[in-house]
Amino acid sequence: MTDRYLDDLSVGESWTGEPFTMTEDEIVAFATQFDPQPMHVDKAAAEAGRFGGLIASGWHVCSRVMRQFVDEAYFGQTPLLGMNVDALWWVRPVRPGDTLTVRREIMDIRPSKSQPDRGVVRTKTWVTNQDGDLAMSFENQMQLPRNAEARL
Amino acid sequence: MTDRYLDDLSVGESWTGEPFTMTEDEIVAFATQFDPQPMHVDKAAAEAGRFGGLIASGWHVCSRVMRQFVDEAYFGQTPLLGMNVDALWWVRPVRPGDTLTVRREIMDIRPSKSQPDRGVVRTKTWVTNQDGDLAMSFENQMQLPRNAEARL
Repeated sequence: MTDRYLDDLSVGESWTGEPFTMTEDEIVAFATQFDPQPMHVDKAAAEAGRFGGLIASGWHVCSRVMRQFVDEAYFGQTPLLGMNVDALWWVRPVRPGDTLTVRREIMDIRPSKSQPDRGVVRTKTWVTNQDGDLAMSFENQMQLPRNAEARL
Repeated sequence: MTDRYLDDLSVGESWTGEPFTMTEDEIVAFATQFDPQPMHVDKAAAEAGRFGGLIASGWHVCSRVMRQFVDEAYFGQTPLLGMNVDALWWVRPVRPGDTLTVRREIMDIRPSKSQPDRGVVRTKTWVTNQDGDLAMSFENQMQLPRNAEARL
């Protein structure tokens, strides 16, 4: 992808990533390290529990969505700095074998008043499963250089 | 820890976890898998960049804080369900060797109107480094059973 800077972006721009599948091994490996609750790591306990089977840690879904964002390189090699997340909702469980599609849209673009070489873009992200049902959504703010001449 | 349910909690309760250190190996391993941007995975590039060295992925800090939350088991074996995160701010970089202390406080407790066996607790979390400076904060909402008789 070509490098894209704050001044190149428009509110309402949106893009959709390639669908990807969350495997049981990935779900258990992440949760074993970071979120070892029975519903995420213990298949028998998860099957007896309220969700009827293993579900992914919400932080795993966030992290996997981040990986896709980096791989997509929608802004090319432009340096991005994540500042903030708001209105993150884990709406539905993500189960082994679920295939997730991520759609992102630019909600707001704000050049910095104090630092003329940079600004903040706010995006909203929707993560849907293979049935088209929303699994997770969130908004986030990132700092970007305004143009190729900026040196952050 | 003994099991603690929604009806056992009070607004204003707070607790502080054992400090833990983020190692360079952990930072690079997480980011290699989930957030492979140069500032997180490429030591030479990170040293030449705006932060003067490697910094942890923000999602890694979230995930590590989650792990501590599970290990602390502040609510015992009571089943918890993370629903939402708001006002997540990555305020300062977390660098290899940084020791983080997590403080949590209960901000709000709301029994469900439609489901009398459960409710929602809102907490705020502050993550400070070894200098006492805030690195990250967020609010989140979790669903909990109201008492030991509830079967979610």
